[in-house]
Amino acid sequence: MNKCVYPGSFDPVTTGHLDIIERTAKLFDDVTVAVLNNYTKSPAFSVAERTAFIKKSVAHLKNVRVGSFDGLLVDYMKQQDAKIIIRGLRALSDFEHEFQLAAMNTKLCSEVETIFMMTNTKYSFLSSSMVREIVQFGGSVEGLVPAPIIDEIRNRLTKQ
Amino acid sequence: MNKCVYPGSFDPVTTGHLDIIERTAKLFDDVTVAVLNNYTKSPAFSVAERTAFIKKSVAHLKNVRVGSFDGLLVDYMKQQDAKIIIRGLRALSDFEHEFQLAAMNTKLCSEVETIFMMTNTKYSFLSSSMVREIVQFGGSVEGLVPAPIIDEIRNRLTKQ
Amino acid sequence: MNKCVYPGSFDPVTTGHLDIIERTAKLFDDVTVAVLNNYTKSPAFSVAERTAFIKKSVAHLKNVRVGSFDGLLVDYMKQQDAKIIIRGLRALSDFEHEFQLAAMNTKLCSEVETIFMMTNTKYSFLSSSMVREIVQFGGSVEGLVPAPIIDEIRNRLTKQ
Amino acid sequence: MNKCVYPGSFDPVTTGHLDIIERTAKLFDDVTVAVLNNYTKSPAFSVAERTAFIKKSVAHLKNVRVGSFDGLLVDYMKQQDAKIIIRGLRALSDFEHEFQLAAMNTKLCSEVETIFMMTNTKYSFLSSSMVREIVQFGGSVEGLVPAPIIDEIRNRLTKQ
Amino acid sequence: MNKCVYPGSFDPVTTGHLDIIERTAKLFDDVTVAVLNNYTKSPAFSVAERTAFIKKSVAHLKNVRVGSFDGLLVDYMKQQDAKIIIRGLRALSDFEHEFQLAAMNTKLCSEVETIFMMTNTKYSFLSSSMVREIVQFGGSVEGLVPAPIIDEIRNRLTKQ
Amino acid sequence: MNKCVYPGSFDPVTTGHLDIIERTAKLFDDVTVAVLNNYTKSPAFSVAERTAFIKKSVAHLKNVRVGSFDGLLVDYMKQQDAKIIIRGLRALSDFEHEFQLAAMNTKLCSEVETIFMMTNTKYSFLSSSMVREIVQFGGSVEGLVPAPIIDEIRNRLTKQ
Repeated sequence: MNKCVYPGSFDPVTTGHLDIIERTAKLFDDVTVAVLNNYTKSPAFSVAERTAFIKKSVAHLKNVRVGSFDGLLVDYMKQQDAKIIIRGLRALSDFEHEFQLAAMNTKLCSEVETIFMMTNTKYSFLSSSMVREIVQFGGSVEGLVPAPIIDEIRNRLTKQ
Repeated sequence: MNKCVYPGSFDPVTTGHLDIIERTAKLFDDVTVAVLNNYTKSPAFSVAERTAFIKKSVAHLKNVRVGSFDGLLVDYMKQQDAKIIIRGLRALSDFEHEFQLAAMNTKLCSEVETIFMMTNTKYSFLSSSMVREIVQFGGSVEGLVPAPIIDEIRNRLTKQ
Repeated sequence: MNKCVYPGSFDPVTTGHLDIIERTAKLFDDVTVAVLNNYTKSPAFSVAERTAFIKKSVAHLKNVRVGSFDGLLVDYMKQQDAKIIIRGLRALSDFEHEFQLAAMNTKLCSEVETIFMMTNTKYSFLSSSMVREIVQFGGSVEGLVPAPIIDEIRNRLTKQ
Repeated sequence: MNKCVYPGSFDPVTTGHLDIIERTAKLFDDVTVAVLNNYTKSPAFSVAERTAFIKKSVAHLKNVRVGSFDGLLVDYMKQQDAKIIIRGLRALSDFEHEFQLAAMNTKLCSEVETIFMMTNTKYSFLSSSMVREIVQFGGSVEGLVPAPIIDEIRNRLTKQ
Repeated sequence: MNKCVYPGSFDPVTTGHLDIIERTAKLFDDVTVAVLNNYTKSPAFSVAERTAFIKKSVAHLKNVRVGSFDGLLVDYMKQQDAKIIIRGLRALSDFEHEFQLAAMNTKLCSEVETIFMMTNTKYSFLSSSMVREIVQFGGSVEGLVPAPIIDEIRNRLTKQ
Repeated sequence: MNKCVYPGSFDPVTTGHLDIIERTAKLFDDVTVAVLNNYTKSPAFSVAERTAFIKKSVAHLKNVRVGSFDGLLVDYMKQQDAKIIIRGLRALSDFEHEFQLAAMNTKLCSEVETIFMMTNTKYSFLSSSMVREIVQFGGSVEGLVPAPIIDEIRNRLTKQ
C-alpha cells in the first residue's frame, strides 16, 4: 500500500520534478521514479542518460529507486507490485491530460490509484522542453535542473 | 506520516465524497473527514447534522473518523498531528481554487502536504448544491447521496 | 423531436441571447424560451418583466414562444413534451457549469438531450449582470440589449 | 434543415464517437459521419479503413450515412447541401479548439451552424490516440471501441 | 499616453498588488491606483481605509498616486485623462473575467486600452479574501500584505 | 523605457497580429516586431518572407520596425536595449503557455517585463495555422490577413 511509482519522460529531470520526488519520499515508504521509453517521440536524451541523471539527483533519498518502462504503465505497476501512481500537476493543460490518463489507467486496472501533488508555484513555469531550449541557446539552467547534473546537460546539448 | 485529513463543507456529503473517502481509506492508515464550520456561509445543514450524515455513510470503514473544525485548516492539522490533506478534484474551476488553497496552506505551515485524488468521472457532475436543489424541487437523489442518508436528507429539505 | 427549450434567467435578455434564439429558430420547428423563476437569487426584474422583454424581442420570430418555470428543468421539459435543451456557450467558466448541468439533467431524465450553440464572438464579453451594472451607472446599452427594450430597461434600472 | 454532418478524423472511431452518433440520430433526420482525409497528419488507418469501421459500427442506425472529405469542411457542407455541423465536446482543450473552428467555419460560410453535444461523462477520458496506444501495447479495448470492430483494430495495430 | 490607472477593490492591498504597482511604476510615467467603491458588495475595509493602506504601501514610489471611484471605470478614465488600464492576471478564472471586463470597457470607450501584467508566480495563490480569512483566524500575514500595514490590518480585523 | 518588442512566428502575420501592433504603436514610442527563426519547426514561409509581409502591413505606422532573431528572446532584448515584451492573449491555452514563457523570461533576465494585450474578440478564432489551411484549400482570406499581402500569400501557398 505504501509503494508508489512516479512515471514520466524526464527529458531531462528538472528541479520541479525533484521537488515532487522529495515531497513524495516523505509520504511513502518506497518510491520508484520510472522513465518512460516512448518510441513515438524522439527524446533529447536516451533512457540510459535520463535514468542516470535522476539517479545522481536523488542520491540523497534513501527510499527512492529509479527504473524505466515501455508499454502500458498499468503493466509496469503490476510488475512492480505497486498500486499508487504519483503525478505532479503544474497547470491547467496538465490537469486535463492527467485527468484522461488517470481515468484510463483506472479503466485498464481498477486497483491502481493515481494521486496528484501540486508543483511548487516557484516551478510552475518550468518544463523539460524549456530547459532543452535554454541550454541549446547558451542560457543558464542554474536552479532549473538539479545541481549535480547541470554540467553534463550543458555539455551534451551544446555539442549538438 | 500515514495520517490524513479530508476537509470540506459536506453540505451534505455526496456519493462523490464517499468515493474519495473509500479510496483514501485504502491508501492511508488513519483518515479523518473534517467538517468545516464556516461562519461566513449559511449552510443548509448544521455541523452536527453534516457530521452525523458522514458517520452513517462511513460506518463500514474501520480507519475513518469524522470531526469538525473552524478557524484555519493548518491549525486543525497540528491539533490532529496530521500532515497530509486530501482533496478531491472534480473539474477545472476546482483545480484553480484548490491550487490556491494548497499553496496558501503550505505557506502557512511548510510541513503540511496536500494530495489530490481525482473524482470518479461518473460523479464529475455532482455537487452538494445540486443535491440540495434537486431535493427541494422533489427530484430523486438515489445514487447522488450515500444510501443510508437519503431519507433523512429528503425529509429535512422538503420540510423547508 | 423538433421541439426545444432554451432556459435561462434572462435578467434581462441580451443581444447575445437574442442571437442564440434567432439561430435556434432556424434549426428547430418549435422553440420555447423559458424564464427560470429562481427563488434563491433576487433578480433585478420580475419573471413577468423578463418574460415581457423577451416577447418584445422575439416578435419577428414565428416559431418562438416564451414561458417560465420554477422547479426542475426536466419536469418542465416533460410538461412541454420537449426533449431538447438549448444552451449558449460563451466562455470557459460557462463550459464547466454547463457540463455539470447537462450531465445532471441526463441523470434525472435520460430522454432529455442538451445541445450547445456557441455565442457569437462579438457577444463573448456580454452578460446580463454587465448590462445591469452599465445601466445603473448611466452607461449606454445600445447593442447590448435588443433594440425594442432599451428604453424600458433604462427607465426601470435608473429609477432605483 | 434537418440534415447534419458529424466530421472528424475517427482514427479509429471510439465508443465515445458512437454515443454522439446515436444521440444525434435521434435528433436529426439525416446524419452523415464524415471522415477527414487530412494530408498533414499520418493516420494509423487509411480513410477507407476508417470509413469501413464506422459503417460496421452504425449498421443499426437507419438515418446515418458515412462519407469522407478533404479540403475545407464548409465546401463539403455545400456539396452535401447540409447546414448543421455536429461536434462532441469532451473537455476544456476541446472547447477552445472547437470554439475557433466553429467561428472560422461561420466566417467562411455564414449559413453553416455548429452545434455541440457533450460527450457522456463515462467516455470523457477516451480518445482515438489512447485507443491506438493501448492496442499497440497489448491492452484490452473492450468498451473503448464499438464491439463489431474490436478484432479488426487489434489485428491491424498489433501487426505493426 | 504614458498615464495609467490600476483599478481594483484592494480589500486590503496585498504584496501581490504591490508587486504589480512597483513594476507598473517602472514602465509608465504616471500611475494612479484607483480603489473601487462598489456598493453591491460589503467590503471589510472602507474606501478611506483601503486608500490609506495603499498610500502607506506606495510611499516609496514617486510617480504613483492613489484615488477612488464609483460608477463606470471608463468615466473615471476620462475624468483622469488616462487611456491605459492596468490589470494583474493571476490565474485562469481571472483571465476569463478580465477578458470580459476589457472587452466591455473597449465597447464603452474605444480609446481605452487594457494591458495586463502577470502576477509573480510566488504570489499566484494570494488574494485579499485569503488575507482577511487568515487574519480573522489569527494566522500570520507576514509577506502577504505590505510590511507598513500589517499591524493595522491585524488590529482592525481581529477586533471584529 | 518606452521601447518594446513584439516577438512571434508570424507564419504569416494575420489581421489579429496587425491589430495588436497598431494598438501597441499608440502606447509606446518605439515598437519592434521580431520574427522568431525557430529551427525546430518547419515554417510555411521563410524568415525573409515573413519579415517582408510584416513590413508591407505596417508601412503606415511610423514608430514600428521589423526585425528577426534566433536564440533566446532575452538575448535579443538586451541587444535591442529594450525591456518590454508585448504579447497578445487570445484564449485560454494561449494564457497557460504565455504564463510559462513570461515567468521563464523573467527568470532568465529580471529586468525584462512582459505585458499582454487582449486580442480583439473579432479575431479570437484567428491563427496563422488556420490561414495557411484555408489558403491551401482555396478558401478566401479576406479580412484574415492584412490587405496588402493577400495576393502574395495566396500565390505562394497555392503553388505548393
